[in-house]
Amino acid sequence: MSVESKKLKYNEISEKISAYRLALTTLNWDSSTIAPKKGASYRNKMAALLSGELFSIQTSDEYIALIDDLSKETLDDVTAREIRLIKNNLDKARYIPKEVFIEYAQLTRDAENVWEKARDDHDYEPFKPYLKKLIEMTKKVISYRKDDRPVYDQLIDDFETGITLADYDVFFKKLKEEIVPFLHKIIDKKIPEPTWLTRDVPIEQQRKVVDILMEYLNYDKESGYIGESAHPFSSHFSIHDNRVTVRYHQDMFTSSIFALIHEVGHATYNGQVDEDYQGRAIADSMTYGMHESQSRLYENMVGRSRAFWSSIYPKVQSVVDALHDVTLDDFILGINHVALSLIRIEADELTYPLHIMVRYEIEQGLFDGTYDVEGLDQVWSDKYEEYLGIRPPHNGLGILQDIHWSGGAFGYFPTYALGSAYSAQWMMAMQKDIDVDHCLENNDFRAVNEWLKQHVHRHGGVYEPNELLFAVTGENFNPQYYVDYLKDKYSKLYDINE
Amino acid sequence: MSVESKKLKYNEISEKISAYRLALTTLNWDSSTIAPKKGASYRNKMAALLSGELFSIQTSDEYIALIDDLSKETLDDVTAREIRLIKNNLDKARYIPKEVFIEYAQLTRDAENVWEKARDDHDYEPFKPYLKKLIEMTKKVISYRKDDRPVYDQLIDDFETGITLADYDVFFKKLKEEIVPFLHKIIDKKIPEPTWLTRDVPIEQQRKVVDILMEYLNYDKESGYIGESAHPFSSHFSIHDNRVTVRYHQDMFTSSIFALIHEVGHATYNGQVDEDYQGRAIADSMTYGMHESQSRLYENMVGRSRAFWSSIYPKVQSVVDALHDVTLDDFILGINHVALSLIRIEADELTYPLHIMVRYEIEQGLFDGTYDVEGLDQVWSDKYEEYLGIRPPHNGLGILQDIHWSGGAFGYFPTYALGSAYSAQWMMAMQKDIDVDHCLENNDFRAVNEWLKQHVHRHGGVYEPNELLFAVTGENFNPQYYVDYLKDKYSKLYDINE
Repeated sequence: MSVESKKLKYNEISEKISAYRLALTTLNWDSSTIAPKKGASYRNKMAALLSGELFSIQTSDEYIALIDDLSKETLDDVTAREIRLIKNNLDKARYIPKEVFIEYAQLTRDAENVWEKARDDHDYEPFKPYLKKLIEMTKKVISYRKDDRPVYDQLIDDFETGITLADYDVFFKKLKEEIVPFLHKIIDKKIPEPTWLTRDVPIEQQRKVVDILMEYLNYDKESGYIGESAHPFSSHFSIHDNRVTVRYHQDMFTSSIFALIHEVGHATYNGQVDEDYQGRAIADSMTYGMHESQSRLYENMVGRSRAFWSSIYPKVQSVVDALHDVTLDDFILGINHVALSLIRIEADELTYPLHIMVRYEIEQGLFDGTYDVEGLDQVWSDKYEEYLGIRPPHNGLGILQDIHWSGGAFGYFPTYALGSAYSAQWMMAMQKDIDVDHCLENNDFRAVNEWLKQHVHRHGGVYEPNELLFAVTGENFNPQYYVDYLKDKYSKLYDINE
Repeated sequence: MSVESKKLKYNEISEKISAYRLALTTLNWDSSTIAPKKGASYRNKMAALLSGELFSIQTSDEYIALIDDLSKETLDDVTAREIRLIKNNLDKARYIPKEVFIEYAQLTRDAENVWEKARDDHDYEPFKPYLKKLIEMTKKVISYRKDDRPVYDQLIDDFETGITLADYDVFFKKLKEEIVPFLHKIIDKKIPEPTWLTRDVPIEQQRKVVDILMEYLNYDKESGYIGESAHPFSSHFSIHDNRVTVRYHQDMFTSSIFALIHEVGHATYNGQVDEDYQGRAIADSMTYGMHESQSRLYENMVGRSRAFWSSIYPKVQSVVDALHDVTLDDFILGINHVALSLIRIEADELTYPLHIMVRYEIEQGLFDGTYDVEGLDQVWSDKYEEYLGIRPPHNGLGILQDIHWSGGAFGYFPTYALGSAYSAQWMMAMQKDIDVDHCLENNDFRAVNEWLKQHVHRHGGVYEPNELLFAVTGENFNPQYYVDYLKDKYSKLYDINE
């Protein structure tokens, strides 16, 4: 077969894969938003069947041979990158014996069930042997790869290509040395949470705030949609169809708002990818960290800034009764309130990366032998006490709070912190080109979107994080921007001399 | 292969087919309700690809051989019926040369485009040659079947198995002899349309009416959902997931309501099929006429009755300002108002079947040579004048009003009238077992649903219409019930002595 025929064949299969992915995305969106409960079991079974069809295509001899073939050809940069991504994933999976894969899949299913009960019972003991097995099994699965690096290094690389353990070590060391003591100065001030944050805000009023925000953020309803779901998420259907969901909390309305801004960040990223990549894997193969860098830039760097709210706060105040006596200054302080923080997903911007640091240190220790599952709940609690100034009252609010490990996702957590850190670096670069505060104050969010489109979004997954960071900011990932940003922002908010 | 292995294989492929159908249903629902506009072109392309995958499975040599094999085996009744249905469709399609099929598909695509413009221009001429070709091509496609019956007889049978041209002739003759003169008596009374019917009703108030209706009809939100779309429809996802849509017209709120009740009829039918048929073709292979018999029973026989509204009208009146001065009697008269009627889809219950009669007579004449496409618009207009007492002012409101013929759907229209006629026969049987009016007046719609479930719904597509009608009502399709029902109802409403 000529290289042209191979490419045609590759495009044909890729399109078919995209069709299955769109169907599964649609089924999943439907299922998480409006689908009636009683249809769930049939729907899930059918979705699993379709996933199986997709899996068959992606693991067919024909497809694998084609990818191997094409990886040896000279191709345009984008196709070459796409083939490399697919081949890397194939290479990771192809030598795993089927029975090992099945054993691993079964283990994670069982472990998730055990974890869920353990969390509800606040009891680490039943989960402990599963955590042990999960680590052993992960090591075993990884051992089939033709890759000599230590297991955790490989896992880290799986979730964020090109970012190494050494990079993370530098990053988290900075957080530990600079942010932990800084946080404790704030904690020592014992500033109570503003009471207006938990005032009742009727859903109807929250919907009006959402309308104001969507207009401000230029989130276009002709290529987007705002659904409702138990947990907010964003869903990529195609470049011109990126949806988000919101969950309205009557007694925590700001939480709903910032979750939504976060998801709009993800949706805008996917929606501003170069149209030429429509339907190709490259359109949607950004790393976790890169994706999170956009959602967090929206949610925190921009969304919790004074400049952002200064232009729309009067409108928002006019539709939310509970804000009638809350000044813009009060509002900005409230949405940036730093609290003693036990639960990652409820953490404020400053404490969030420290939650991740705990998990990173523990994961690293589990794989290099520093820690064992025995007594790990105490290690967790000790670290929380040391870094975050609070000790979990029980393991349900401690080591058992996240689902990730029960699914075998080791090395995933760090990308959450990385996203925030990247976003500070993007922000720094953006501010060199445009006056971000001025744009925000003048209702010109389009300029922010446009900068991100030109420098980040349009490339989709064409570049690795460090490639793109270097091209745009002139250096590889550098966590100093993030640390400086956090200290600068919170020093001003909490009147702390650094 | 043993018969058991064949059945296993058949079940396996059937399940896969169901998975694709669910995916396509979900994509279609999404697309018709909330999906953002700008994603349409990509979404349609991917949906077409998935349809192609499904088509490949259903036309694979393996599947066809399996169906042929199984059709010779002794099977349980339900599986035998399912195989017979599939084999019938295969037999209709298998001898059509591929190039003929492609030519036909291309013709209908072109014809639909031409029809749309012709309708908008009120100009029959450009559509005329396409209509001619459509008839020729339909004859050609049908000619490959091993079936000696006249073409229109076969088409009629395609859309409603077991109902023959002779049956339809009897049916429409009755309508012509009894309903046409009856209608003219009503028209002669020149009763004006009540003005409240077109009063403005805010969507918020209409939603409250919908809530009242859904509760009354026992439409369960745990296995249903009410979406919004440009044209109301119902969508069958599975036995426990049957959704409907509504379109709110601010100035025609009763039209929204009755369209919704109609769709709930369809949804309830699909939702009350025997759970054992879940995921099988038999669960959803009722004929068009049978399905329509349920939706029209809900919409008209029940939904426009005094008994239905007597128990909920006070509630409805309390949420709709525009009804403040409308008594229950006024309301019943208004929702059953008989008007001079040009447009089929806006027709009232009494004139509706006469719209179908016009189309039936013309279709029949086109296939037996009585009519030619030349001058057919005048034939149409003459028939409207004779039967419905009104002549279309132009062909856009005349022969060009429906999309069906442009898509090659000849023989489909009659099922619309058949549905109403069946429903009168079901109603008669139901009234022998339960006091329907009493149930409706006492907010016991469950009894109606339960009767329909036991006698009709639970069987899904296991029986042909006449088989089920005979089993339940003791006779085959008999249009006299329908004619009697219409004359009885409208005699009382319009005070006519018959």
